[in-house]
Amino acid sequence: MNKMKKVGIVGYGLTPFSKDDQKIESILLNSVKNLFDNNQNVARDDIDAILVSTNNNSKYLSPILSEMTGIQPKIAHTIESLCNSGTNSIVSAYSYISSGLADMVLISGAERFDSPGQILEWDNSRGEYKHPIYWASIFTKSYKRQYSISDEDLAIVSVKNHKHAKENPNAFSDKTYTVEDVVNSKSLTEDLRLLDCSRPCTGSASIILGSEEKVKQLSDNPVWISGIGQKTTSAGFTKNLSLSSMESTKLSAKNALEMANTNIKNIDVAEIHDAFSVCEPMALESIGFSNDGEGADLVKNLHETNNFKINPRGGLIGCGHPLGATGIAQTIEITQQLQCNAGKRQVDNASIGLVHNMSAAATSSTVLVLEK
Amino acid sequence: MNKMKKVGIVGYGLTPFSKDDQKIESILLNSVKNLFDNNQNVARDDIDAILVSTNNNSKYLSPILSEMTGIQPKIAHTIESLCNSGTNSIVSAYSYISSGLADMVLISGAERFDSPGQILEWDNSRGEYKHPIYWASIFTKSYKRQYSISDEDLAIVSVKNHKHAKENPNAFSDKTYTVEDVVNSKSLTEDLRLLDCSRPCTGSASIILGSEEKVKQLSDNPVWISGIGQKTTSAGFTKNLSLSSMESTKLSAKNALEMANTNIKNIDVAEIHDAFSVCEPMALESIGFSNDGEGADLVKNLHETNNFKINPRGGLIGCGHPLGATGIAQTIEITQQLQCNAGKRQVDNASIGLVHNMSAAATSSTVLVLEK
Repeated sequence: MNKMKKVGIVGYGLTPFSKDDQKIESILLNSVKNLFDNNQNVARDDIDAILVSTNNNSKYLSPILSEMTGIQPKIAHTIESLCNSGTNSIVSAYSYISSGLADMVLISGAERFDSPGQILEWDNSRGEYKHPIYWASIFTKSYKRQYSISDEDLAIVSVKNHKHAKENPNAFSDKTYTVEDVVNSKSLTEDLRLLDCSRPCTGSASIILGSEEKVKQLSDNPVWISGIGQKTTSAGFTKNLSLSSMESTKLSAKNALEMANTNIKNIDVAEIHDAFSVCEPMALESIGFSNDGEGADLVKNLHETNNFKINPRGGLIGCGHPLGATGIAQTIEITQQLQCNAGKRQVDNASIGLVHNMSAAATSSTVLVLEK
Repeated sequence: MNKMKKVGIVGYGLTPFSKDDQKIESILLNSVKNLFDNNQNVARDDIDAILVSTNNNSKYLSPILSEMTGIQPKIAHTIESLCNSGTNSIVSAYSYISSGLADMVLISGAERFDSPGQILEWDNSRGEYKHPIYWASIFTKSYKRQYSISDEDLAIVSVKNHKHAKENPNAFSDKTYTVEDVVNSKSLTEDLRLLDCSRPCTGSASIILGSEEKVKQLSDNPVWISGIGQKTTSAGFTKNLSLSSMESTKLSAKNALEMANTNIKNIDVAEIHDAFSVCEPMALESIGFSNDGEGADLVKNLHETNNFKINPRGGLIGCGHPLGATGIAQTIEITQQLQCNAGKRQVDNASIGLVHNMSAAATSSTVLVLEK
């Protein structure tokens, strides 16, 4: 790969994640308003591109957001790739800046609680079950059998991430739970209970990426995107090579770490796509944070030592999962961690962080490495 | 702007534009199959990214297309910006390649005849008329009044473009019409008749862009993207500065020509976004092909001399307008013209061409310059 121009984070904005029944245009606008409130030194005229990340069916949302915010960008369109839309948009923005077509790109991700991205009609391999709970149940059964993992072991993911979310003012959940609470919560399938699942919700997250010059000029506390890895292996669940690991995540992590010229031991803090509790240990193994079958032990150890290293934001399980906003909110959390600006969620001495965002049973993944 | 890496066209594929009632996945696949039939030297494993351009509401189409074609790309997502989705996708692909994140990108645009992108619910300035015919009627009335243009003058756009489409085996229309046919066709509004309008249809167009190295390796007849201009001025029709010119098109053309280091006199052939007959002279003026108010004279002159320079493909009026495919099909036409591969539509000695693609009453535009 050729030496690319540096791209970093100029600023960000968030809304609380909720069950609000708002129009998608308003949801998008709310986090952009928060962004400009937080970054009054950013001139709207300097925004070259606006990318909207969503699964909402409304069209032309990027020009609509442009008009509502008083921005007249060159580039304006919507990007969709189910749950992975947010980091797809971030990588696209990176490429506009790195290529020289743009100096600053605003990315705004938003979703309503009733997003059409929560089902995938096309994938016949799910039989009559279009909802992600179908593949999550099979992943869970398969992972438990392969590594002799119990429901209680997996419940710790939810307990830990709800605990983290309690320290996140924008999280959907503000409750904490015990392992017993999780395993006794409403049973949805043989292997999944309500508290094993991330919740659909309404929310928005916006971020501005900039060229090296713009970031140095506008941020007191620069954070850079140093590694990018993306892979799509298929769209159909049963095309996955394994039902207890994530091939697209493995390849994405490998490529992102190589591009950043670092290795997994140097990662101080990470956001992991815990759409369901089993996804967190599976992803930790596929990324390389632990050996195969030892992801749940790592989660337990972090929980017992009150270490916020993995999913400090509260993960998708604690924060809620507004599909188009998730990857952007994850990237904002890592930015806040590297800027020592994460409040009670702050991880000590965080200088390199990682974001893992995926879609549809990990048939596609993005991994980003961020550094200060 | 920094010196960017060269990006060019490796290959392309098309389907006929029709009223077929097919699933969007099949429509996309058809032009990709045609592309690989035309370019058997392109290895699927060398495709780094797949971008889908559509207004269809189906999700995750890029990974679905990846699976159906046996490609496992790094980057995979859908891009939407109404009628302008196709060239937005081409510019995004350009940036992935120019930045070094990808060497080859497959862009596939498709639409069904009943696309939800044909209305824009959000724009209150259209009153109760959500369909584009509302703004097209106002543009027509305004343009006719400002420059003393008659219905017959504008009808020549439709006559000319249907004549061109007759030479395009993929065009929706295979009929030719007289000025009388056009002005006597079914009246839709006071100022618009059926034959003044592009037709919604089903169709698909796919193109592969590549780095300089890939293009030189895989194409006998390289065509390069030398200029890019994009601008979004608003999303609402009544925010337009003028109702008889296109501000976003003016700015996009200026920037594209500057980037290509050329001027309008050097453009040998152009695809213009004639969603309605009035759009062609308005766009010709805004791009700089003629003085203000003289676009219709230029159209008449080209028609009388049987010169295919403007909209050789037949334009949106003659070809039909499958929204997400249009910008890609326009780019393919200019590529064919520069490769001297446009059959009976061939313009003499074409070495520099231009593509103009826009959305929603020219509230956003893209202009591309291509060179051999």
